Amino acid sequence: MGGAAIKIMRGKFITLEGIDGAGKSTHLAWLAEVFRQHGNVVHVTREPGGTALGEKLRQLLLDPVNPMHPEAEVMLMFAARREHLHRVIEPALARGDWVVCDRFTDASFAYQGGGRGVEWARLAQLEEWTQRGLQPDLTLLFDLAPEIGRQRASGARNADRFEQEHDDFYRRVREAYLRRAREAPSRIRVIDASQSVAHIRQQLTDIAGALWR
Amino acid sequence: MGGAAIKIMRGKFITLEGIDGAGKSTHLAWLAEVFRQHGNVVHVTREPGGTALGEKLRQLLLDPVNPMHPEAEVMLMFAARREHLHRVIEPALARGDWVVCDRFTDASFAYQGGGRGVEWARLAQLEEWTQRGLQPDLTLLFDLAPEIGRQRASGARNADRFEQEHDDFYRRVREAYLRRAREAPSRIRVIDASQSVAHIRQQLTDIAGALWR
Repeated sequence: MGGAAIKIMRGKFITLEGIDGAGKSTHLAWLAEVFRQHGNVVHVTREPGGTALGEKLRQLLLDPVNPMHPEAEVMLMFAARREHLHRVIEPALARGDWVVCDRFTDASFAYQGGGRGVEWARLAQLEEWTQRGLQPDLTLLFDLAPEIGRQRASGARNADRFEQEHDDFYRRVREAYLRRAREAPSRIRVIDASQSVAHIRQQLTDIAGALWR
Repeated sequence: MGGAAIKIMRGKFITLEGIDGAGKSTHLAWLAEVFRQHGNVVHVTREPGGTALGEKLRQLLLDPVNPMHPEAEVMLMFAARREHLHRVIEPALARGDWVVCDRFTDASFAYQGGGRGVEWARLAQLEEWTQRGLQPDLTLLFDLAPEIGRQRASGARNADRFEQEHDDFYRRVREAYLRRAREAPSRIRVIDASQSVAHIRQQLTDIAGALWR
C-alpha cells in the first residue's frame, strides 16, 4: 500500500549432465550444500521427473518393458520438462530460490539426439517451445569415456531401458554432449570426470564461485 | 524367386471425431461391421491409446488426479500417436488392412487447440513431424451442441479429466473441430449428430460407399 516494493532477484538455475558413472550424484549433493552455505534456498530436482506427472513418465521411460519409438520418447521427455518448468523450476527461480537439476535439455540432445538419432533441429524447436528462452545459468558436464562409466556404474541394480544400451550408443551420447558444449561454451563447463573427487571439487569451487561474484 | 510380385493395396484409414455423447462409439462399431462385410480385415483402435504405451498414457491423460500444463498434455497426445502409428496403424495399412480409429489428430486440434488454447501452428508442426504426410482417407465428424452431448453422456460413470470441463470448453472444442473440417473439406465429412441413428446410418452408407467405388 504505497510501501517500497522489494525486488526479488531471480534465483540461479544449475544443471548437471553426463552419463551414468560420471559422478553426477556425488557432486550434485556436495554442490547443493555449498550453495546452501552461501545462504541460498536450494531445490534439488531431476529429469525426467521432479513432478507427480514427471515421475510417472520417468517410470514409463526407464522401464525396460516399455519399448517406444525414439520420437515418442522425446515427446515424453519434453512433456515432463514442460510440467517441471511450470510447477517447480520457474516458480522457485521467481521466488529467488536456487534450483539444481540432475539432467535437463542437454540430456535430450545427448540421449535422444546423439543416442537415438532424433534430428537436432527438431530438438531445438522443442527446446524453444518448452523453455521460451530460459536456459540454465550454469551447466556442468561430467565427461567420461563410456567404458569407464560402465565399470563404475555396474552392479548397482538392474539396468534400466537406457542402461541396457551398448557402448556405441554411449559414445554417440558423449559426442552429442560435447557438441552441445561447443555450441554454448559460456553456459556449459566440461569437467574431466576421470579425475579424483578432490580435484573435481576444487574445479567446481572455482567455477561455481562465478555465480555469486 | 522370379515369381511375379503381388502388389498389396494400402488399406483405408478412417477416423471418427466428436465430443462425448455424439454417438461415435455406436456408429464406429456399425461401420467396422460394414467394412468387414465388404471383405476387409478391419482393426478398431482408439486415441489416446491403441498400444501398451499409449494406453498407459491414456490413463495419465484422463485421470483427474493428474493436473498438467496444456503443452505437456499435447506432447503426451503426440507421443502416444507416434507410437500408435509406428506399431499399429502404419503396419496394418501396409498389409492392406483397414484401420478405424476413435479420435485422431483432429481431436488434438479440437481439445488441446480449441479447448486449451495451444497454438494452431504448433499443432500443425507436431502433426507434420508425427504423420509425415499420412492422413486419414476419411474422417467422420459427429457434430453436436455440447449441451445435448452432456445430457446424452451423463450418468454413465465418473467424469474423467476432460469430461469435468464445462460447456464453454466444449463450445471451443466444437468450433475447432468445425474449423478443421473447413480446412480439409475433402477429408472431413460433418454429420449432424442430433439426427436419428437410422438417418445417420443412411448418410454413413452413402459416404463410406465412396471408399470402395
